[in-house]
Amino acid sequence: MKIFLPPWIQTPPPEKSYRSIFKWGNPAAFKHPSPRLFRMLKQNFGLDNADFRERQFTGETRVVGMDLAPQLSEDFMNAVEQAVGKDQVERDVYSRLRYSTGQTTEESMDLRQHRVRGLTDLVVHPRHRNDVQALVTLCHAHGVPLSVYGGGSSVTLGHRMDKGGITLVMGTHMNRIHSLNETDLCVTVEAGMMGAEYEKILNEAPSRMGAVRAYTGGHFPQSFEYSSVGGWVLTLGSGQASSHYGDAADLLLAVEMVTPRGTIRTSSIAATATGPRIQDFFKGSEGAFGVLVSVTMKIFRFMPQNRQSFSFIFHDWSCAVTAAREISQADGGMPAVLRISDEEETDVALKLYGVESGPLDHWMRWMGFKPMARCLMLGTAEGERIHAREVAAMVRRIARQQGGMSLTAYPVRKWEHSRYMDPYMREDLLDFGIIIDTLETGVPWSRLHEVHRNVRAFIKQNPEIICMSHASHFYPQGTNLYFIFISRMMNTEAYRTFHRTIIRRILDAGGTLSHHHGVGRMMAPFMEEQLGKESMDLLKAVKRHLDPKGIMGPGIMGL
Amino acid sequence: MKIFLPPWIQTPPPEKSYRSIFKWGNPAAFKHPSPRLFRMLKQNFGLDNADFRERQFTGETRVVGMDLAPQLSEDFMNAVEQAVGKDQVERDVYSRLRYSTGQTTEESMDLRQHRVRGLTDLVVHPRHRNDVQALVTLCHAHGVPLSVYGGGSSVTLGHRMDKGGITLVMGTHMNRIHSLNETDLCVTVEAGMMGAEYEKILNEAPSRMGAVRAYTGGHFPQSFEYSSVGGWVLTLGSGQASSHYGDAADLLLAVEMVTPRGTIRTSSIAATATGPRIQDFFKGSEGAFGVLVSVTMKIFRFMPQNRQSFSFIFHDWSCAVTAAREISQADGGMPAVLRISDEEETDVALKLYGVESGPLDHWMRWMGFKPMARCLMLGTAEGERIHAREVAAMVRRIARQQGGMSLTAYPVRKWEHSRYMDPYMREDLLDFGIIIDTLETGVPWSRLHEVHRNVRAFIKQNPEIICMSHASHFYPQGTNLYFIFISRMMNTEAYRTFHRTIIRRILDAGGTLSHHHGVGRMMAPFMEEQLGKESMDLLKAVKRHLDPKGIMGPGIMGL
Repeated sequence: MKIFLPPWIQTPPPEKSYRSIFKWGNPAAFKHPSPRLFRMLKQNFGLDNADFRERQFTGETRVVGMDLAPQLSEDFMNAVEQAVGKDQVERDVYSRLRYSTGQTTEESMDLRQHRVRGLTDLVVHPRHRNDVQALVTLCHAHGVPLSVYGGGSSVTLGHRMDKGGITLVMGTHMNRIHSLNETDLCVTVEAGMMGAEYEKILNEAPSRMGAVRAYTGGHFPQSFEYSSVGGWVLTLGSGQASSHYGDAADLLLAVEMVTPRGTIRTSSIAATATGPRIQDFFKGSEGAFGVLVSVTMKIFRFMPQNRQSFSFIFHDWSCAVTAAREISQADGGMPAVLRISDEEETDVALKLYGVESGPLDHWMRWMGFKPMARCLMLGTAEGERIHAREVAAMVRRIARQQGGMSLTAYPVRKWEHSRYMDPYMREDLLDFGIIIDTLETGVPWSRLHEVHRNVRAFIKQNPEIICMSHASHFYPQGTNLYFIFISRMMNTEAYRTFHRTIIRRILDAGGTLSHHHGVGRMMAPFMEEQLGKESMDLLKAVKRHLDPKGIMGPGIMGL
Repeated sequence: MKIFLPPWIQTPPPEKSYRSIFKWGNPAAFKHPSPRLFRMLKQNFGLDNADFRERQFTGETRVVGMDLAPQLSEDFMNAVEQAVGKDQVERDVYSRLRYSTGQTTEESMDLRQHRVRGLTDLVVHPRHRNDVQALVTLCHAHGVPLSVYGGGSSVTLGHRMDKGGITLVMGTHMNRIHSLNETDLCVTVEAGMMGAEYEKILNEAPSRMGAVRAYTGGHFPQSFEYSSVGGWVLTLGSGQASSHYGDAADLLLAVEMVTPRGTIRTSSIAATATGPRIQDFFKGSEGAFGVLVSVTMKIFRFMPQNRQSFSFIFHDWSCAVTAAREISQADGGMPAVLRISDEEETDVALKLYGVESGPLDHWMRWMGFKPMARCLMLGTAEGERIHAREVAAMVRRIARQQGGMSLTAYPVRKWEHSRYMDPYMREDLLDFGIIIDTLETGVPWSRLHEVHRNVRAFIKQNPEIICMSHASHFYPQGTNLYFIFISRMMNTEAYRTFHRTIIRRILDAGGTLSHHHGVGRMMAPFMEEQLGKESMDLLKAVKRHLDPKGIMGPGIMGL
């Protein structure tokens, strides 16, 4: 009998279609749900093959909308064209929609139904710092909103322009490397350089730049291929190896920011006691204070040959959490990747990795690691050769103390293989009315269980919803919690309400609004509650000083 | 023949004398220059015993000055007394002078000659946060300057009150521990807690607080015993073990700040992507934005039994620097203490440690490590047991690659023994007209040699001056340079000019204004040049928002 597979779309979206805007990543790349996942979804949602014959709202139509003419004056638009060159400016609705759209599920749902919200008026591709300075000056003089588009992977409505304005696309030209400083172990690049290209250049520094060594940036967010180095810093991103290399905020040495108040360059000296560090004001500023034109980032020696991989299974979530906490607090160096999955995520992962019902599963069961109780930990140790070995050995010691059993490096390989590809499944699922989305938060260790329990309890009120959680960024003082939920909910408004209620539950249980996705416009309404009025007023005062007319990313963070 | 020793003062300063104000540390503690150092100084400055018979300007006179009545209105002073209790307020000139004075050489020289500059009007000892809030409100309402006195170890004129006002002494009452959180590995303490007490409480957490483990704060500045936890954060201090544990800025999790604009409390969650982190605005704010009432600090497991000590001698400064850079960039964990001394400091250290002319010296010379070329590295590795061993082994490997030869742990013991005591010698020397002072800077690796060479060249224009330099805080991207100079210069103005010219040379060569001493009022005139006008304007805007009348630490950082 031939196995039925849904008619997943296998071709790049039609040119200038809605789908070409919301589809994740490379237009010609796909990762379809595996037969195992497909089976699981059908079981879970009580669906059968018949429900997967007809795709719906695929957004393959061409974007039209002649009624959406730019709201800017012809004079202003001409001035922009004069400043940067006509070739660098796009006025058509498709381009404007494309660069006003990020990667939230609700944006995707809207575009599938050809709904357009918050459109920029003009798309501009600045060629260099001088262009940015000219554009900021021009927008400031005319009070025109200005937004910055890096890699476009915002999941917080960071690109939506409710009052129109212009959007600067940084990746088109401003993606050059300024200088590599091997003595000071840092690199200065333009903010629009994309993550994968950045890492590639560093890895290949000897052949491409005549460097003595190869380097790594140490930053590998899931959006790696579709996020920019500037974006990492502006949204406080975290990479999958952050426990060792640090978050984007830790990796930044210096910025060059063009603000309506002038251009700010900060010192790239590692430590200086000359007042509050100016670059700290811009970490996480999400474009609300100005346009980041270049960054100086810390880099590391690239030594992939030293990488040690490990994975363990624990009897329950509590043991996995304790092991991760012990590792983080042992003061013995940190793994690069470290990841613990809760019961449900472990269950799904073992299914998808093909472990379930195989010999390894039997072995685990026989050893007392029961399905829907057992929890997976996986990770890698990196850096200097002996250090990487020592960290991996420490992880092993601590895991065993918490009753963990090694599952070899196999799950790590499975995870590494798919780590940048999973987002591609989103479109396939939504073609059949199944939403896969995520929310995440930062927690102190002492709040981890309460946040995890409460958020899961809320989501699982609807038992049909699959809810997988993991922690993947570790500090001695806490970690993050990342929730992935799969549900069926074709009404955008109902979905939005569901989504915002999860955020509410996170805050009520003592998590932060976000660990590494940022605030954007989606989280903005929660900001004052999160920070307190006095802190929010302080951010507003900084905003008022740097951007007195409020043209920079209006609405971002509620500023 | 009896060895002549100068009549070093061996008794605590007379009560309420000038000397009781400027004398470092414990009034009853002394560390006199050793006979070896005394001999060296005589040789160096061409002095003989006769020059050390008569002490001069010892400041043992009682502080008087009835003409220095407080400039504040009686009404205001009464209101202060009403707010905090009469017992907590001091109006006498001695107290006012004491709490307007830090630890700069020029302040010491002034007080020795009974010169008083920049006196606070009223000394207040707040009992708790509510007192601080009341005082800030009162001062804000009346436009009265307000200064904060932590441990009093400012070397940047941080306590001088040129326009009078009131000074809050934080250490008297606000030195309590609020909570120890063993799960989240952090502690919340009032800002006035002194360093040594803080460390002691953490070390003794099991017996004093019923904790499961003993902890360390990981912060050991030379001022350790006479600096406050709040002061560390506000001035961006660095401890001697900072290369492993981080600088004060890295150790801070959260603050509670009372500003004229209200009280700001920040989240103690390790990582959160909710805009620029508000506590970052206060790191290094030196009291210019408000009064820090409590801090939440990261702590570490206390495992002194794992400490590994090491020292090496290198053929020259360049080899020592290269070894330190290799260690810092190897990505294999960092030593806690790491310290490299240049030729002259090595020479002095070997003299003072009693190594010179002994068997070890002969061995070194025989192995080609020549006096005034050879350079010392010493340090410790800490943390988890195997990690500490691995880091020490890595240091050994790298040191050997750079031609280093182990000198065993002996120099480390000598250094540890004296590390908090050396400042006590300052008074002895100045009693005989010899100044010992320091300046320090942060440098990228690529600028280290130029800054070191240029600053030394300037200081050694007067060949009589002893100038010792070391680097002692390490980052993959750079380090600090710490200059200690011993000179004879009894004219305060001439000394000030000399001192400021060194700063000028540091800046011209590409160092920062300060690595960990801060800015205060001494460095303030250089701030705009250091940061750039746009950055300075940003700090001023923050100041204007939080402290619209400019009452908080007027003149600090040039704000």
